[in-house]
Amino acid sequence: MSGRRQPVLGILGGGQLARMLALAAAPLGVKTLVVDSAADACAGQVAPLLVADWKDYVALERFAREVDVVTFDFENVPAETAHWLAERVAVSPVPRALAVAQDRLAEKTLFRECGLQTPAFVAVDTREDLDRALAEVGAPAILKTRRLGYDGKGQFRLRTSQDADAAWAALGEQGAAHGLILEAFVPFERELSVVAVRSREGDFRTWPLTRNWHTDGVLSLSLAPAPDIEELQRRVTGLARTLAERLEYVGVFALELFVEDGELLGNEMAPRVHNSGHWTIEGAHTSQFENHVRAVLGLPLGDTGARGLSCMFNWIGELPDPAPVLTTTDAHWHDYGKQARPGRKVGHATVCAPDARTLAERMATIAGALHREAQAGPALDLLRHL
Amino acid sequence: MSGRRQPVLGILGGGQLARMLALAAAPLGVKTLVVDSAADACAGQVAPLLVADWKDYVALERFAREVDVVTFDFENVPAETAHWLAERVAVSPVPRALAVAQDRLAEKTLFRECGLQTPAFVAVDTREDLDRALAEVGAPAILKTRRLGYDGKGQFRLRTSQDADAAWAALGEQGAAHGLILEAFVPFERELSVVAVRSREGDFRTWPLTRNWHTDGVLSLSLAPAPDIEELQRRVTGLARTLAERLEYVGVFALELFVEDGELLGNEMAPRVHNSGHWTIEGAHTSQFENHVRAVLGLPLGDTGARGLSCMFNWIGELPDPAPVLTTTDAHWHDYGKQARPGRKVGHATVCAPDARTLAERMATIAGALHREAQAGPALDLLRHL
Repeated sequence: MSGRRQPVLGILGGGQLARMLALAAAPLGVKTLVVDSAADACAGQVAPLLVADWKDYVALERFAREVDVVTFDFENVPAETAHWLAERVAVSPVPRALAVAQDRLAEKTLFRECGLQTPAFVAVDTREDLDRALAEVGAPAILKTRRLGYDGKGQFRLRTSQDADAAWAALGEQGAAHGLILEAFVPFERELSVVAVRSREGDFRTWPLTRNWHTDGVLSLSLAPAPDIEELQRRVTGLARTLAERLEYVGVFALELFVEDGELLGNEMAPRVHNSGHWTIEGAHTSQFENHVRAVLGLPLGDTGARGLSCMFNWIGELPDPAPVLTTTDAHWHDYGKQARPGRKVGHATVCAPDARTLAERMATIAGALHREAQAGPALDLLRHL
Repeated sequence: MSGRRQPVLGILGGGQLARMLALAAAPLGVKTLVVDSAADACAGQVAPLLVADWKDYVALERFAREVDVVTFDFENVPAETAHWLAERVAVSPVPRALAVAQDRLAEKTLFRECGLQTPAFVAVDTREDLDRALAEVGAPAILKTRRLGYDGKGQFRLRTSQDADAAWAALGEQGAAHGLILEAFVPFERELSVVAVRSREGDFRTWPLTRNWHTDGVLSLSLAPAPDIEELQRRVTGLARTLAERLEYVGVFALELFVEDGELLGNEMAPRVHNSGHWTIEGAHTSQFENHVRAVLGLPLGDTGARGLSCMFNWIGELPDPAPVLTTTDAHWHDYGKQARPGRKVGHATVCAPDARTLAERMATIAGALHREAQAGPALDLLRHL
């Protein structure tokens, strides 16, 4: 009997996203090989880990030979590394999509070209540019690095134009290296995200829109499907499809959106599986992780429909006591196997239920036991008024 | 900040059960270390693998030092190995439970002591014993090795007492080493199994009874919850609890049962996660794999309730085309990452649905596309008459 060769998925970056991708790849018969510069990268607990940095072309050469396709846990992989790999092995998503998502200016320009409105924005390269930009955009506004920002890092909020000097002191130096962008501050009513997937053959699907709440720029809580989104879901799916087709995107990506006065505004694109899609592991027929693996390996996509309602609590810094989650029906614990560290994403829990009342009861039990009433509060208020 | 040490689960045997245990352990923050004599053991794709045989005490010493608790993928680990490890590290289930389940005579004797009836049985050590046993049990009957049998191996079916010579020729030699048992052949109406779990603190739970169909002694199809089991579920749960308490069992085990004329008969006990419980990965709030990890590590047990109905197709010998499963809503593919080989369990698929009609539709679509109508048939007949 001839030997069978299983496909191997290569992942750049070995954090929790790589870990959850590897766990989703295994039942599909797909092996995983992870590259990370840290020997204790948490994905290395569930898949072989190659310890190397993004410039170690000897290690990357070996990596490229051993894998069938390369994908990303981390979108800020240097463009040169992605291009170098793309000359040797299939890379999904394509480096061009990565490059767009790495640059807030290119990203927001693409959003507008695809028909997705955005907050007003102006590129800023010098201190003088900042004054001109403030005059155009108005205050309040947010100055951001064009590149390498995530989870609220590399941002400065200007309440009035008087804050321009402080903003420049904080980010001017980073701006010289990566460029800056001034964006109008949007006093949004709702933060939503959509997670979408496109296959090699162009099959395109979205999961139900997710309602998100952030604390200090980091996702704290997600509720899915977001309430009252019927018409929005259709519009967002159309916009996301246009964007995916323009980029010839293959795999999962997420769009972060604001809703203000019924108007939809594009905030960011993440060219990878996304924190606001973690609820899909238990709450959807096919998770974002499984569909990403399927897409990049050329397998057919799975159903992205939700089963009931789900709410995800993000655990930041350190894990709370798991017992209240472990003992609640249809609540699911996810420990990423990381060391505790302030601000670090170390795990999450997803609570599922067939209806809003049951979900609210389960969430309230868990939040009460863990003294996380403030974290659960916004979703509980919403669920109790459905 | 002080370093955090994650618990490590050691597993003896590196097959698909170890693989699925490791995949369930990761989200709980539990690391896994697997021992197997085969360097290509499929669990080694998702967890570190120590290549060693059951008598390699140098390797086992290292294994015992690195893990917090030892459990089993494979129940036929030699008793000496289990006892040797139990002197050095926590072993769950306890070697005594393993020993009972390894010996059909001890197992059936225990069933009767716990109030679970069994087919008539008599121990057979010599050719003369076989004649005496046939006179007592009657024909048809099945001669089985007392130890090391699984999936229909080490069995010989006697249609009449004329088959005694042939049965002895087939199994007499194995009998000298492992002992034999003659069991009455039961023309059962239904084959059921129950998967149960007991925690360190004595918390005891069963998943819903599963209806099973075998082909050539190997599980082919499971349907859960088995239809028409309300009263049986209560009785079986009581019997399983008695048995677990007698053995001071910690972890998951399964009982294979026959139903004939409304009478319940115990067939076998498996002291580990069981093939007929694979549907619990997607079909129950907590899977047998997750609850086994929780039990042996002293974590609280999760809800064993089913979500809707589930049917599991076992893939024996080689995998069929995955596409019909991947494209069906709430159908889930499990490739164990093994080489194809006749008779080998290489994967399974679980199809879930909220009701019997939808489940039958989904199963029929998949079975039709894969030409597996014969495999799906018995469950489809049953579902269509609900």
